[in-house]
Amino acid sequence: MSLAPVEADFAIALSAIRNSAPLIHNMTNIVVANVTANALLAIGASPAMVENTEEAAELAAVAGAVVVNLGTLSPEWAAAMRLATQRAQAAKRPWLLDPVAVGALGYRTRLANDLLQYRPAIIRGNASEISALAGDATGGKGVDSTLSSNAAIEAAQALARRSGAVVVISGAIDYVTDGTRLIGISNGHPIMTRVTGMGCTASAIGGAYLAVSEDPFLAAVLAMVTMGVVGEAASAKAAAPGSFQTAFIDALYQIEAGDLARGMRLS
Amino acid sequence: MSLAPVEADFAIALSAIRNSAPLIHNMTNIVVANVTANALLAIGASPAMVENTEEAAELAAVAGAVVVNLGTLSPEWAAAMRLATQRAQAAKRPWLLDPVAVGALGYRTRLANDLLQYRPAIIRGNASEISALAGDATGGKGVDSTLSSNAAIEAAQALARRSGAVVVISGAIDYVTDGTRLIGISNGHPIMTRVTGMGCTASAIGGAYLAVSEDPFLAAVLAMVTMGVVGEAASAKAAAPGSFQTAFIDALYQIEAGDLARGMRLS
Amino acid sequence: MSLAPVEADFAIALSAIRNSAPLIHNMTNIVVANVTANALLAIGASPAMVENTEEAAELAAVAGAVVVNLGTLSPEWAAAMRLATQRAQAAKRPWLLDPVAVGALGYRTRLANDLLQYRPAIIRGNASEISALAGDATGGKGVDSTLSSNAAIEAAQALARRSGAVVVISGAIDYVTDGTRLIGISNGHPIMTRVTGMGCTASAIGGAYLAVSEDPFLAAVLAMVTMGVVGEAASAKAAAPGSFQTAFIDALYQIEAGDLARGMRLS
Repeated sequence: MSLAPVEADFAIALSAIRNSAPLIHNMTNIVVANVTANALLAIGASPAMVENTEEAAELAAVAGAVVVNLGTLSPEWAAAMRLATQRAQAAKRPWLLDPVAVGALGYRTRLANDLLQYRPAIIRGNASEISALAGDATGGKGVDSTLSSNAAIEAAQALARRSGAVVVISGAIDYVTDGTRLIGISNGHPIMTRVTGMGCTASAIGGAYLAVSEDPFLAAVLAMVTMGVVGEAASAKAAAPGSFQTAFIDALYQIEAGDLARGMRLS
Repeated sequence: MSLAPVEADFAIALSAIRNSAPLIHNMTNIVVANVTANALLAIGASPAMVENTEEAAELAAVAGAVVVNLGTLSPEWAAAMRLATQRAQAAKRPWLLDPVAVGALGYRTRLANDLLQYRPAIIRGNASEISALAGDATGGKGVDSTLSSNAAIEAAQALARRSGAVVVISGAIDYVTDGTRLIGISNGHPIMTRVTGMGCTASAIGGAYLAVSEDPFLAAVLAMVTMGVVGEAASAKAAAPGSFQTAFIDALYQIEAGDLARGMRLS
Repeated sequence: MSLAPVEADFAIALSAIRNSAPLIHNMTNIVVANVTANALLAIGASPAMVENTEEAAELAAVAGAVVVNLGTLSPEWAAAMRLATQRAQAAKRPWLLDPVAVGALGYRTRLANDLLQYRPAIIRGNASEISALAGDATGGKGVDSTLSSNAAIEAAQALARRSGAVVVISGAIDYVTDGTRLIGISNGHPIMTRVTGMGCTASAIGGAYLAVSEDPFLAAVLAMVTMGVVGEAASAKAAAPGSFQTAFIDALYQIEAGDLARGMRLS
């Protein structure tokens, strides 16, 4: 059986997002809060961001999916993330972990490892972050990877088997694995590395697909193809990062299932 | 006497904002901090954001108006909002309450009700939020309303009478009431629901008008007409939400009193 | 010896930023987090933002430069800024202080003065902020200056001598001084005052140049010329602040050393 999604997979998921506007509890960082909210609205979802201990679990319990992005932590936010993911697990709400800068900083590395007990459906990071979370000591420079994505495939597979999550390595080629299955996605454009929050946006979009999919592996593949094809469409209209950011949101709003199926390049 | 503003009302208020650049203490959420600051600058005001307990009251005491938006609360922010609104009342500085997601989450619902004791001049929310704050159990989904705006008119009127505030219900038609007077504003464009922070921007702009107006009812009407007419102007230039966001700020910067008076559609 | 940089100064510094992508620990406020991260990416640096006490010093120790912007403080952030700047000094990492609204609010005025003990390489603010930090009682309105930049020159020189930092006064003319040397930069465009975060962006870009320069005075001059020339290039493409913001990031990405040397206007 092929792992490649077909146009109907995109059509069913996109229609579900656009028709039901799933509530995505998007616990993300202060740098990308606006752009990830706009990306979720552009694809048709309903974003909400609550990162305090009084409310985070309450919102998680009714969300279509929860996204936990460790970009700009505080002790209060970390505690809220524990509560939200614990509740998400209890309420059977799927959640996605974006381990920003894990491996580069100790506090968040311990937090990310601890959150694994609440069973994320998807973990998405760059090669340095995935390697570090898998237990390899690789570092990374701040939020940027010092590894290319294929260098982390074995680590991703091991992490997927250990955590039960689908693991996504973002890079020039994105890899998606559940420990057994593995697929590479070659879409995207280099300018995406010059705009802040493209990885965080991939995680947010992953949350939107997760809210409407039974299969986290399929949700992850659809999300990464969407990011890549939309990025290519935007790069055809904008050659510099300011206008690219605008064009990206426009293209995400306008994308159709056929565009995604035709534009998809697997490897 | 007609409730409808005339061109001179827009001209006087816009000139006052542009000439005096009132300081707006814009206590808002991390998702829209940037876009609401840019909206305030575009219309001619001077935004500042301070959400800590050490400084929030000090700034409120010298602000032209204070905007309190509950979008992304923390215990520290909630405490700062109490201090700022208490001081605003004491210093006779008008303030506006934006009860984001009130009704959907318990903590902020209690906070919003508690802040009413400091007498906001304007309360602006969507139908679910206004209904919830008025005491009707209606819910809402995260930050989005599950009601159309006219379903909350009676609740808004009751809330206005009880709180002493002018109450604005945002929606396809915006309603403004002080408990006695009621006016509907039909401007705007559906794409505004696909851009994050348009409601929060309406609250920020409401703060700017509040800083230069004697009458909060007039300030609220001017603000909602401005949002709607500017939104229509931007939608004529941009058909997707990324470019719409940019066009909105541009149009807000360029709008003139005559455009607002001519474009206004009341109902 | 002329204080004016030559094309080779721009070329060497820009190449160093673009080739080494220095990690800039950008401790900035929630209003401008996104745009300053995008500005750092556009010029070729690698931004990371960490404002908690668990991690801030750890990141500062490995950063190419640290930027400390007091825009939206909290007690946690203030503590993290103390730890980060102390560690930066110990690890010989240069850091830049942006004293947003110092003079207008007491808490941050005390914090800024206290941080001076850790020896910032550059201090960049508007005339009200620099005057206040120098000990003159001048006020300012929220985040906006009530003084023109030349009114603060003596204060800046005194502050430079006392603190050991290069001091930059932003305004229609930017002044850079180390207490002995003084240079004025006349680049820029009035629309920059209608976009939030242009000052904060200047500080971020200052951090990028600081990471690759031996001489903080040169780094400050290169940064302010870059801001002004890029602002002029963007204003030639965009007449309103929404599109200006986009054009600014695009122009920053595309600027070359020759453009900067040719466009520079000193006074």
